Amino acid sequence: MSVTKNNENRTILPEPTIRRLPWYLSYVRMLDNLHVEYVSSTQISKELNVQSSQIAKDLSFLNIRGKTRIGYEVSSLVKELEDFLGFNKHHDAVVIGTGSLGTALMQDHGLENYGLNIVAGFDVRKEVIGKKIGDLPVYDVKELSSWQQEHKVSIAILTVSVDHAQEAASQAIASGVTALWNFTPYRIKAPSDVIIANTSIYAHLAIIYNRMHGHE
Amino acid sequence: MSVTKNNENRTILPEPTIRRLPWYLSYVRMLDNLHVEYVSSTQISKELNVQSSQIAKDLSFLNIRGKTRIGYEVSSLVKELEDFLGFNKHHDAVVIGTGSLGTALMQDHGLENYGLNIVAGFDVRKEVIGKKIGDLPVYDVKELSSWQQEHKVSIAILTVSVDHAQEAASQAIASGVTALWNFTPYRIKAPSDVIIANTSIYAHLAIIYNRMHGHE
Repeated sequence: MSVTKNNENRTILPEPTIRRLPWYLSYVRMLDNLHVEYVSSTQISKELNVQSSQIAKDLSFLNIRGKTRIGYEVSSLVKELEDFLGFNKHHDAVVIGTGSLGTALMQDHGLENYGLNIVAGFDVRKEVIGKKIGDLPVYDVKELSSWQQEHKVSIAILTVSVDHAQEAASQAIASGVTALWNFTPYRIKAPSDVIIANTSIYAHLAIIYNRMHGHE
Repeated sequence: MSVTKNNENRTILPEPTIRRLPWYLSYVRMLDNLHVEYVSSTQISKELNVQSSQIAKDLSFLNIRGKTRIGYEVSSLVKELEDFLGFNKHHDAVVIGTGSLGTALMQDHGLENYGLNIVAGFDVRKEVIGKKIGDLPVYDVKELSSWQQEHKVSIAILTVSVDHAQEAASQAIASGVTALWNFTPYRIKAPSDVIIANTSIYAHLAIIYNRMHGHE
């Protein structure tokens, strides 16, 4: 994945750190569910196969300190990680393209645990416009701009087909969206202040195949 | 995403290159559909915002050469990219965890364009075992090992909940799977010869939030 964002005003966390923090979170959430009280960076290190010095460094960005010989308080660490990662806040989002992936995301209530609140879907296909997916309405993508005047959602999830990716992205940006979560393999062009996260699942497939074909 | 794989015997393509190749492919596929005959690296560069020297370097791994002043033949470039990325081959896969994401992947016929052929789903929930998703059967995950003796599928797609990720991965590996496409935020432990591709969509959300909160 890659994120592009011009930002002169603040320090932005290194991407590798942000990628590791959710691993720590999913592990300490499990410990918390098991009522474990403390966890050391050595223990996290063994479990996740990340060097403990790296873990201590990553966690130093948070507003939490471990105690000597005891480690981090698990419940506080869960909360700090959730706060820091933004998973405790509600971020409203729309899905553009309600095909199988878009539909799945709209039905995935697990995303709410990660602060994502999908409020509507948009599509071009007459047969789905006006219908519902789960509890969520599906609108004509032509209505996105007028709908946004009331809702002012900041995140658009792009799950259209690749040949509609740029068009859908441009419509979303024109409607006031500031962040695009792009699931298409298309490389979106956008003004530099728009945040773009590319989740290119096909690239991951290519990497798997490349590694596999080495020992066929 | 990250891929871990011990491999002493061959050169493995740099991950950034493998990540860019599907961008080129999706672009040249579109040109091919529009019956465009030739494309230069400069043109790809402008469209995808990647330096043309980088594009030339990436494409030098392929069995294709551009012609001076004309560029690459589009249809040949599509074919070479598909071959190289493994998207032209059929790779059989199983989905473990037929929740909303697993179901979406099983219904996404678009994945076939990228060489992925999902043949069955596995789950622990009695209410889905024995049912079908699209045309594909859903079996009890306990049957995975015996099912694999006949089918010998090499890729398992992990779409279970995070607290079942390691257990499901271990079962898949024990059954003979050699590559795991892990959609959970859990960091799987596996022998070093198992290929693991982590598609951690939650990490991407965290990156979006981190960038967004800078200008709230």
